[in-house]
Amino acid sequence: MRLADLPTPAAWVDLTALDHNTDVMARHRPGASLRPHAKAVKSTPLLAHVRNRAGHERFCCATLREAEGLVAAGLGTDLLVANETLDAPRLGRLAAAGRAGGGLLTIAVDSPETIQTAAAAARLGPVATLIDVNVGLPRCGCRPDQAGHLAELARGAGIEVRGVMGYEGHVVGNPDRAWRSEQVGKSMELLRVAHDAVGGEVISAGGTGTYDLHQWASEIQAGSYLLMDTHYGRLGLPFRQALFVEATVLSVNDDGYAVADAGLKAFGMDHGDPEIEGRGVFFCSDEHVSFTWDAPRRPRVGDRIRMLPAHIDPTVAYHEHLAVIDTADPDGGGQVIDTWPVDLRGW
Amino acid sequence: MRLADLPTPAAWVDLTALDHNTDVMARHRPGASLRPHAKAVKSTPLLAHVRNRAGHERFCCATLREAEGLVAAGLGTDLLVANETLDAPRLGRLAAAGRAGGGLLTIAVDSPETIQTAAAAARLGPVATLIDVNVGLPRCGCRPDQAGHLAELARGAGIEVRGVMGYEGHVVGNPDRAWRSEQVGKSMELLRVAHDAVGGEVISAGGTGTYDLHQWASEIQAGSYLLMDTHYGRLGLPFRQALFVEATVLSVNDDGYAVADAGLKAFGMDHGDPEIEGRGVFFCSDEHVSFTWDAPRRPRVGDRIRMLPAHIDPTVAYHEHLAVIDTADPDGGGQVIDTWPVDLRGW
Repeated sequence: MRLADLPTPAAWVDLTALDHNTDVMARHRPGASLRPHAKAVKSTPLLAHVRNRAGHERFCCATLREAEGLVAAGLGTDLLVANETLDAPRLGRLAAAGRAGGGLLTIAVDSPETIQTAAAAARLGPVATLIDVNVGLPRCGCRPDQAGHLAELARGAGIEVRGVMGYEGHVVGNPDRAWRSEQVGKSMELLRVAHDAVGGEVISAGGTGTYDLHQWASEIQAGSYLLMDTHYGRLGLPFRQALFVEATVLSVNDDGYAVADAGLKAFGMDHGDPEIEGRGVFFCSDEHVSFTWDAPRRPRVGDRIRMLPAHIDPTVAYHEHLAVIDTADPDGGGQVIDTWPVDLRGW
Repeated sequence: MRLADLPTPAAWVDLTALDHNTDVMARHRPGASLRPHAKAVKSTPLLAHVRNRAGHERFCCATLREAEGLVAAGLGTDLLVANETLDAPRLGRLAAAGRAGGGLLTIAVDSPETIQTAAAAARLGPVATLIDVNVGLPRCGCRPDQAGHLAELARGAGIEVRGVMGYEGHVVGNPDRAWRSEQVGKSMELLRVAHDAVGGEVISAGGTGTYDLHQWASEIQAGSYLLMDTHYGRLGLPFRQALFVEATVLSVNDDGYAVADAGLKAFGMDHGDPEIEGRGVFFCSDEHVSFTWDAPRRPRVGDRIRMLPAHIDPTVAYHEHLAVIDTADPDGGGQVIDTWPVDLRGW
């Protein structure tokens, strides 16, 4: 099957670009110094491909569904749930699976309640924690001056505390590299205060936009670099767009616009409209994108177009599978060489 | 199981509100004068519930996946795909299924190419068309003065033309009822020009925001009225919010905000942030919502909150199933009485 034969809308991965992105990152953050983040791709075959190519063995994720899927796929040797949970039964089942398979599950905690949840699960299997510290993003994480107390609480409950985590999510998307670098410094000053009180060998931070701006963190959590999007594309990073949504032009009219069959249910929209190279997207509805074109390139009904997502994470979460296209094969350009299920969707 | 025991985030339907919405609409547009639109709910058990309660037998949908699912669920007696397609093989399989089961599939066409596709499928089973007319929304649809020619083309290819379709999607969401009413009039003037040239008994138009502003259309396409959202909630329609996303508070801090576990992957975001009653949503990320609260109502870690989507269609498309809650049962408030799969997702 060729890309042009896939029913649309179809999410597809440019394998050459994915491998390029994987290699660039692995040169800068090899092995355990990078935790590829499952939330940005939600596909265990894709992550296994990255592991096999680059050798990263430690992954992180945002949901228990992602954790369960990664463990089931053999990617849970040292898995970080980089998020809080209060679901003791599910965390317990994950711990028990870890005991059976030898994997260590680490979970972020930022309160007595989340520590209690981890402690309950730790009775069933290996569960460790990182103290999640707020370093400026208005989300989870304790104040730096609370981290030591929480670590004491956790250790008092018999749980290993491996270190600290602090995600500078308010910094990673800004196109000004100098500003990002300065802000990473400020965030890591906060995380250092916490780490001084907590101890442990793990200092987990960062994201795609700051992957090369960290000196002190022991590991970087990054996922978007694998497939990229137009939002991160503005930062001038050395990663290429590797995920596209193929669409079919359904309607062309004399008012200067055309309509293709990929819309609000094929793209995360929080970062704005998707893009079409050389075309002007001006309206998205549930199953349609309306776009203008430059004069010499009037589209025809039946044309295929390639759309670029503005935000990769909530885009991937709409798709059941990713067609894998080997764009480097001179004879096979456009051949679908594999189909990777997006098996970590949902919760 | 109770609502409070569901793992979060969990999409759930207030059955009392759904039934209220169904009844209000059916009083105004009974039976075949309404085509409930599958795209807004994407669940055949939900639509079967509506059919059984209100007697609507004709449905419409936006994708071939929706059409296939509706036919398989026995809801394809008179099914309108209110969208263009160029996928002749899949449309042909639907036509063959219609021949086997006696259902009539009708598809929107707005070009020679889409008519050709319908003609190819019609060789395999009953396929009819509506001429899709642009009545002001910048999407598919021919000019009113082209409709007659397209109807001739279709009839010349041996396909039944049942009438015309024109969706005033640029009108349905405006809170000013008088403006909506005036604009419906303008759009229907355009559709009338087309219908004069096309003929046929079907004049298909409208949506939730204009369901009671049409006199001339033979049928209204509406789906959002069933579950509603905050966008349509601003219009003062007699429909109630019937879909919520339950979330769990994961983190509360002294800076005046808390964080719960439903974010960009649980809500369509094109109409803006979801809402939480009595709370102020100020930041959504992939798996989190950050919100403030009024002074006396400081949340606690572990609290459950109810979130309201801003746009129902792309919200439902993120969820695997909808928990059904019978809020009218005085003894069973909060009991999960059923689980409806969102079986029409994808393409």
